[in-house]
Amino acid sequence: METHILLIDCTDEKGLISKISTTIFHHGLNILIMKEYVEEETNHFFMRMELSGELQIERLEGALKNMLPNDAIISINPKRKKDIVLLVTKEYHCLSDLLIRHNFEEINATIKAVIGNHEFLRTLVEKFGLPYHFITHENKTKEQFEDELYSQVAYYQPDYLVLAKFMRILSPDFVGKFENKIINIHHSFLPAFVGANPYKQAYERGVKLIGATAHIVNNHLDEGPIITQQVIQVDHSQTIKKLVLAGHEVEKNVLAEACKMVFEDRVFVSRNKTIVFS
Amino acid sequence: METHILLIDCTDEKGLISKISTTIFHHGLNILIMKEYVEEETNHFFMRMELSGELQIERLEGALKNMLPNDAIISINPKRKKDIVLLVTKEYHCLSDLLIRHNFEEINATIKAVIGNHEFLRTLVEKFGLPYHFITHENKTKEQFEDELYSQVAYYQPDYLVLAKFMRILSPDFVGKFENKIINIHHSFLPAFVGANPYKQAYERGVKLIGATAHIVNNHLDEGPIITQQVIQVDHSQTIKKLVLAGHEVEKNVLAEACKMVFEDRVFVSRNKTIVFS
Amino acid sequence: METHILLIDCTDEKGLISKISTTIFHHGLNILIMKEYVEEETNHFFMRMELSGELQIERLEGALKNMLPNDAIISINPKRKKDIVLLVTKEYHCLSDLLIRHNFEEINATIKAVIGNHEFLRTLVEKFGLPYHFITHENKTKEQFEDELYSQVAYYQPDYLVLAKFMRILSPDFVGKFENKIINIHHSFLPAFVGANPYKQAYERGVKLIGATAHIVNNHLDEGPIITQQVIQVDHSQTIKKLVLAGHEVEKNVLAEACKMVFEDRVFVSRNKTIVFS
Amino acid sequence: METHILLIDCTDEKGLISKISTTIFHHGLNILIMKEYVEEETNHFFMRMELSGELQIERLEGALKNMLPNDAIISINPKRKKDIVLLVTKEYHCLSDLLIRHNFEEINATIKAVIGNHEFLRTLVEKFGLPYHFITHENKTKEQFEDELYSQVAYYQPDYLVLAKFMRILSPDFVGKFENKIINIHHSFLPAFVGANPYKQAYERGVKLIGATAHIVNNHLDEGPIITQQVIQVDHSQTIKKLVLAGHEVEKNVLAEACKMVFEDRVFVSRNKTIVFS
Repeated sequence: METHILLIDCTDEKGLISKISTTIFHHGLNILIMKEYVEEETNHFFMRMELSGELQIERLEGALKNMLPNDAIISINPKRKKDIVLLVTKEYHCLSDLLIRHNFEEINATIKAVIGNHEFLRTLVEKFGLPYHFITHENKTKEQFEDELYSQVAYYQPDYLVLAKFMRILSPDFVGKFENKIINIHHSFLPAFVGANPYKQAYERGVKLIGATAHIVNNHLDEGPIITQQVIQVDHSQTIKKLVLAGHEVEKNVLAEACKMVFEDRVFVSRNKTIVFS
Repeated sequence: METHILLIDCTDEKGLISKISTTIFHHGLNILIMKEYVEEETNHFFMRMELSGELQIERLEGALKNMLPNDAIISINPKRKKDIVLLVTKEYHCLSDLLIRHNFEEINATIKAVIGNHEFLRTLVEKFGLPYHFITHENKTKEQFEDELYSQVAYYQPDYLVLAKFMRILSPDFVGKFENKIINIHHSFLPAFVGANPYKQAYERGVKLIGATAHIVNNHLDEGPIITQQVIQVDHSQTIKKLVLAGHEVEKNVLAEACKMVFEDRVFVSRNKTIVFS
Repeated sequence: METHILLIDCTDEKGLISKISTTIFHHGLNILIMKEYVEEETNHFFMRMELSGELQIERLEGALKNMLPNDAIISINPKRKKDIVLLVTKEYHCLSDLLIRHNFEEINATIKAVIGNHEFLRTLVEKFGLPYHFITHENKTKEQFEDELYSQVAYYQPDYLVLAKFMRILSPDFVGKFENKIINIHHSFLPAFVGANPYKQAYERGVKLIGATAHIVNNHLDEGPIITQQVIQVDHSQTIKKLVLAGHEVEKNVLAEACKMVFEDRVFVSRNKTIVFS
Repeated sequence: METHILLIDCTDEKGLISKISTTIFHHGLNILIMKEYVEEETNHFFMRMELSGELQIERLEGALKNMLPNDAIISINPKRKKDIVLLVTKEYHCLSDLLIRHNFEEINATIKAVIGNHEFLRTLVEKFGLPYHFITHENKTKEQFEDELYSQVAYYQPDYLVLAKFMRILSPDFVGKFENKIINIHHSFLPAFVGANPYKQAYERGVKLIGATAHIVNNHLDEGPIITQQVIQVDHSQTIKKLVLAGHEVEKNVLAEACKMVFEDRVFVSRNKTIVFS
């Protein structure tokens, strides 16, 4: 029997859980796991359920729509793998980590292709039998570059784009085509050290922790809603090069964790924040 | 408007969430937070809700009892402070931490008294205006000692006993009088280094992490259901004395965290495990 | 036999360790622990030794001065407790933690007095038999306030000042009188969320980690050289109030750790960084 | 100019650092980094130095031998990559991690070959252009199996053997041929949950942390000297399968860290403990 994920996001009101769970019950379904959260400032209700039983998506969706507030966003999906495309530049650590996890089916996703703005990572990607597309940004306007990128990505119709250390800043126009569908790893414990060379900044500031932040890319605010963050302890004796390596350890763990959360439909975006039902 | 905590623990069956939440709704109550868990091996359902609204405890309890499986344990409490008694010996670190948190109302509990089998900690306790009772174990049978202890504890009718580094092992008889009501801090990352002198053992074994475990004391199994555990990094250069100090840091944090969870009604016991709705 | 701490800070050159350790040997002393670090960018040498044996401070200092580079800063101290004065406002968590550690001789320091710009923490401090001085900042110019503060501090001739959540910004003039002698706890993982209300900022940004930073206060740069930093995991469900409490846990641990390091002569300051021989 | 690592392990006596550093100086060498530790219970001295300058290994070794206690073990090596052989069974996570780090020269070692007692991991290894040898243990005595294993390993003359989730217990005889040269990853926070199925044990015990331990394999004591340990937080809702996956994250990080330490000559073994100069 297939498992389905039901996601609901709407204005909060009294009796919501009762209405929803009773509808589920009347459709003969069983609630395996249920998590909910009410954001008080916005009076907003978020819910994630895993359901088992014979489920007719449209019928259930219709029933829920009838009883929920008008602004309700309802999503019912079989617990299936997401299709994803990775964007990379030259750094291998996040890409390798995702390739290995994908190869052994540890993440709930199918990597359709990897696109790089350098040739450097082609060999690695092809070891794993995946298509690698090289699209250089050189001698092109940003618009030309992003048009090519978009065509290639669109060909695969992915559910999500993962920027696995992709070192080009994407225009609002490009980002707007994938609303809340782009995951990025930021080489710093946000909101610290925004900008180039965060490890050099960290070294010069003598920090005792190095961090990384995985977030959703959007156009509304600085770096987009944070999905997860981690840090690692460092000390005065570590050179910039060693800080970079320490940072890589955190970056790949953080990105993997964020991908896991997103690809299992555990992440809601609310303004500039995420609600993560881990 | 008062907030109440509703706890339910029963055999799982289809439709439970629907039944419960609908009953809540019909009683005019609002669900502020709801967490549930189904333990598959035992087919058991655990739920914790925070409810707001005008609540008549007996009426709601009756309504729930009527519809839930026969084995249901239902508890409805106003979100009030627990009464607790602390048992100590000579070590000050866990006691101090709880006294400070209590003094500034950081934990959801009222310390009614501290009982020690040494006089050493009286001064500290009395600084905070709390009664300290000295009950020595010397020149007494275990039974005599525990009888005295029980009388003194019983006088205060506490909801929970906290063993804040109490270094006497309590008999099954004593423990049986406070089922799932005794919280202990174990000076080790259980199940490691059971027995005396865990830090000496840790030193000789050259471990690179020192841990501590807070657990419920019961008679059924070795150390009882684990509530929370933490570790701290150590290295070869730390002497036993320094390992002990490092251990103290963990012990007091772990015990405080466990107390927080228990006193906010977030902990269920299922056989030798806990379910913690943090 | 007393233990002494030898600290050396000078331009690096070949043979330094040989020269120093041979001098130590010729003075009949034994090196218990030795840590050194060369900062490459500045070609600077830092060393901390613990020495046992009968030591004549001036004789050893003279001998070392003769052979070390001209810019050498040499400090030889018996391993004695530092005298400290604490500055506080209204928050109790860092102060309580230090009072308890002091009471049970866990930190290598003697608290001579606590000075607060509110009366709120007097009761707590006096429980521990320590003098509490109330110096309000109200109806005074900053200069007047700091003059009074300085007089009171100077009376105790402390080795270090600890700002245990002292919520007034000290002027460069005041700070200049205690060069590298003031330890502060910053309510954030620096360099993030500088400014007022960091927890509100953190909440609104939806961060998944909350941090704190202990640092030396100086006048040269933003927040001064970082001694130590820690973080704690948080999630979307935590209100600002809960973030503050989570932050308190980190703040007191971080400040205690920094005090430990500084009071055991383990911290060198080099421009805006620290070298910590932990 | 090449860098050399000097390791010294001998009975402690007054003046050792002076003697050693003066010899280094007289040979015209520069001490880049120096770490030392005296184990008090055994009165033993351990030291690691990184030296730059033109170094004649035998000449320096002779000079040091002349002045150090008779039991001194002196090792002087150019900072070169170690040759290693990996032993595996079916689990991919530690192997993959090491293959990636090796491929991008993150670890100070050359993987000469991987030997497995199943064919399962051949494809992965060969993707990276490395030899994979399949040596089954089936239908063989332990002695026969280990003889074949030994022949194959010996062919490569590795500096170290890494058991990257190799699920056969090696005999004292085999281990004896590689004294302190075998690194293993243990699927538990030692000394906890020794034996088969540690994750099942952990699940049934309801632990709140899952750990892993990397250690040197020897014949003297239970699991051998611990190099490094880490833990990860888990909760009641994680099934055994999810605990296993959480454990994998820790295992690969811990093994990578241990390999880093060992391959950079940072690990001394003293009885059943390690001294790690990180």
